[in-house]
Amino acid sequence: MQSPRCETSVERWGLYELRLQGPTHGNPFTEVRFGASFTLGHRAVDVDGFYDGDGVYCVRFSPDTEGTWACTTRSDAASLDGHTASFRCSVPSAGNHGPVRVAHTYHFQYEDGTPYRQIGTTCYAWVHQGPGLEEQTLATLRTAPFNKLRMCVFPKHYRYNENEPELFPFARQADGSWDWDRFDPAFWRHLEGRVADLLSLGIEADLILFHPYDRWGFATMDAETDDRYLRYAVARLAAYRNVWWSMANEYDLMTAKSTADWDRFFRIVQQADPYHHPRSIHTCRGFYDHSKPWVTHASVQHWDLSRALEWREAYGKPVINDECQYEGNIPNQWGNIPARELVHRFWLGTVGGMYVGHGETYLHPDEILWWSKGGVLHGESPARLAFLRQVLEEGPVEGLEPQGRRVAGQAGRYYLHYTGVHQPAEWSFELPEGQHYRAELLDPWEMTVTPLADDLSGEFTVRLPGKPYQAVRLLRI
Amino acid sequence: MQSPRCETSVERWGLYELRLQGPTHGNPFTEVRFGASFTLGHRAVDVDGFYDGDGVYCVRFSPDTEGTWACTTRSDAASLDGHTASFRCSVPSAGNHGPVRVAHTYHFQYEDGTPYRQIGTTCYAWVHQGPGLEEQTLATLRTAPFNKLRMCVFPKHYRYNENEPELFPFARQADGSWDWDRFDPAFWRHLEGRVADLLSLGIEADLILFHPYDRWGFATMDAETDDRYLRYAVARLAAYRNVWWSMANEYDLMTAKSTADWDRFFRIVQQADPYHHPRSIHTCRGFYDHSKPWVTHASVQHWDLSRALEWREAYGKPVINDECQYEGNIPNQWGNIPARELVHRFWLGTVGGMYVGHGETYLHPDEILWWSKGGVLHGESPARLAFLRQVLEEGPVEGLEPQGRRVAGQAGRYYLHYTGVHQPAEWSFELPEGQHYRAELLDPWEMTVTPLADDLSGEFTVRLPGKPYQAVRLLRI
Repeated sequence: MQSPRCETSVERWGLYELRLQGPTHGNPFTEVRFGASFTLGHRAVDVDGFYDGDGVYCVRFSPDTEGTWACTTRSDAASLDGHTASFRCSVPSAGNHGPVRVAHTYHFQYEDGTPYRQIGTTCYAWVHQGPGLEEQTLATLRTAPFNKLRMCVFPKHYRYNENEPELFPFARQADGSWDWDRFDPAFWRHLEGRVADLLSLGIEADLILFHPYDRWGFATMDAETDDRYLRYAVARLAAYRNVWWSMANEYDLMTAKSTADWDRFFRIVQQADPYHHPRSIHTCRGFYDHSKPWVTHASVQHWDLSRALEWREAYGKPVINDECQYEGNIPNQWGNIPARELVHRFWLGTVGGMYVGHGETYLHPDEILWWSKGGVLHGESPARLAFLRQVLEEGPVEGLEPQGRRVAGQAGRYYLHYTGVHQPAEWSFELPEGQHYRAELLDPWEMTVTPLADDLSGEFTVRLPGKPYQAVRLLRI
Repeated sequence: MQSPRCETSVERWGLYELRLQGPTHGNPFTEVRFGASFTLGHRAVDVDGFYDGDGVYCVRFSPDTEGTWACTTRSDAASLDGHTASFRCSVPSAGNHGPVRVAHTYHFQYEDGTPYRQIGTTCYAWVHQGPGLEEQTLATLRTAPFNKLRMCVFPKHYRYNENEPELFPFARQADGSWDWDRFDPAFWRHLEGRVADLLSLGIEADLILFHPYDRWGFATMDAETDDRYLRYAVARLAAYRNVWWSMANEYDLMTAKSTADWDRFFRIVQQADPYHHPRSIHTCRGFYDHSKPWVTHASVQHWDLSRALEWREAYGKPVINDECQYEGNIPNQWGNIPARELVHRFWLGTVGGMYVGHGETYLHPDEILWWSKGGVLHGESPARLAFLRQVLEEGPVEGLEPQGRRVAGQAGRYYLHYTGVHQPAEWSFELPEGQHYRAELLDPWEMTVTPLADDLSGEFTVRLPGKPYQAVRLLRI
């Protein structure tokens, strides 16, 4: 037996990795089964490993409990079977709150109970752009307001996205065609590195496992290849605590797949992922039935930000409108709304009962549009989304629940009203009997908070600036 | 027999009036039947007359054909029966195009074939405000862009509408209560005068026959009184060529009435009105079934200006969104959208396949809000609606038919594209094969028309300013 390479201490929700030398003959990707069981007391967690090339087999584990974990490998290859190791799981470092979970039915929190207020963005193909642009993207994200990023595993072929990436998930055969039975570990190590980069920035990586924008054949693989790809992805990536699984972007444009395929994909991911990261699927037109048990939250593409209640009721889960059209000026109507309109939509979604996602699509001489390639942000919305995120993080820990038309909060404690396109110069409120509140005017575009009144109760009227897109926050005193 | 007072020449679609002295005993409103038959050649049109007080019985007629018309009265009162008269119907004067008719299924034109492009406004209670304010309203309308005005017969009781009018449709009894069997001719003469004032300004009077905003009992009259009121209104007003009949404003808020009542009202008006003026009914929430045969066009209240196709399909008639929320700043959300938003909604409705109505509700120290009382306009939308009206009047005579998403026109001849909230910096079009067009950029807010290209064909892309709320007009050359 070889001595496993392992760290002896891993923080809670960190990543423990065990690497072993094993067989190199035949096809290690398909012919060798490898995994490990991680135990703490009487609890055991079985985890799939994966082949990482060059004779190296790897298994990763993210411990959710402090203490000393033991590990025993299992394999049908004798040289990989029955290795043991142990490591200590220590307290999480500052900023490590664990993976994101659904909480209070329609909201999210980290596993340590810290609320998670999703302000997402999209850089679909950012990991396929090479080091220069990718590092620039990370530098941009460092000061951006986003805490989730939607990104594709497969490269993207689409308008403004014609460049050939350097690395691909699958290996090539001698004739240049794909070897569907072998992955390219270099691609996956690169992808994982980027997921880890996002983790260090506190950003959830919403990994899009399939998508229709394809010229290489990844959108039309056979079922066996699809399933093996999914298991490989989950084995490699599930131990990163910031991973989310998005089965697809615009799944309904992938005509080669049936609903039964998507159901199967969900079940494979659900069964293989020991940590139960958030799982959803993003659509172009008709929605997938998000009420299915393996879906943790509804991932929606819709321009109408007032429909959260309908979807909450239909699915009984958090709703994220991951694509409500992007700030930009390209000809496509999904990519040319003004910053003010996007900020408006974030606020509408917020008071309507859902979370919203950002994207940016300004024409660029070198076709570097944030929405797909990353780079730098040109728009005016991100600063305003930082303001919104701050407002949300100062809000009730249970999240904002719809309380009527364009008002959300927690009844009897906190109300956030939003005027939308309306411009009342006077606004009347009726507060619960016997309660006292203080009122503030929030300007989502100017990013200002102005006191309106210190002590209000019952029915009252406040004067407002008579301009649209204003909010009033009522805080119980 | 008395000699009838009559004019001997009336222009086509003008108003001929015959007045006779008759019985004054009993109740002339309910006990005397009076009318006339107007004949031209072998054609006869039977018209109801009405009692105008002080022993005077009147019948009005609006001739639609030039020539010499003969008139014979009929009555169960001997002194009113069998009078004859004749008059010459002459050519219409400049600006007199006849009553408005539905044309090309979803549009309107005057009876002489001139297109009518509805740009409506609302001054619900303007005729109940007294001469000073009413004259000011007319002065405002003289230079305003509106060619239809929604106005109530009954006075209005509502927020910002608390003043008691001087005149009422019904007479009072000695104890101050209403005499439901007697009308007050002074009220009706005043109302008719205002309808005639609008006619002289080229404005259609969309007369609202019932409404729920009531403290006097007019919203809860019994069926017999309702019906008598309707017949009296039609007998008095139908001969004004600019009259439209709106059975109600927000009819569904009038809980004392059933759908059967509204159906009956429509039939009474349809049967009594020899000219078949436009007929509709305006709703608050659920729509009346505008596909019923007595409805000429759908009168809609809705903030969503993108739904014309749905309503066109449902009803097969023109759609007027008479209330898409008003420019203003009052607390009520139906009355506090910015001018830009209202102009945007007009354009959205236009390219979506409907006509739209304006209203204005700015807070005013004396509660004089245009939407109800008239007065002066404070807003920024009317100038822009004049621009839109000009664009429409320069468009195809058949009207603008939806041609896709936010584009309307006549296929192969004229296309009007509107960006809405979108801000493309480039826009691509595909023109019908072999056709050449010139393109203009229209800015609905700045009210400018800028040439974009002189001769375009096939597929092409134009540069746009990258700001929202722009339009591109393509004209075949």
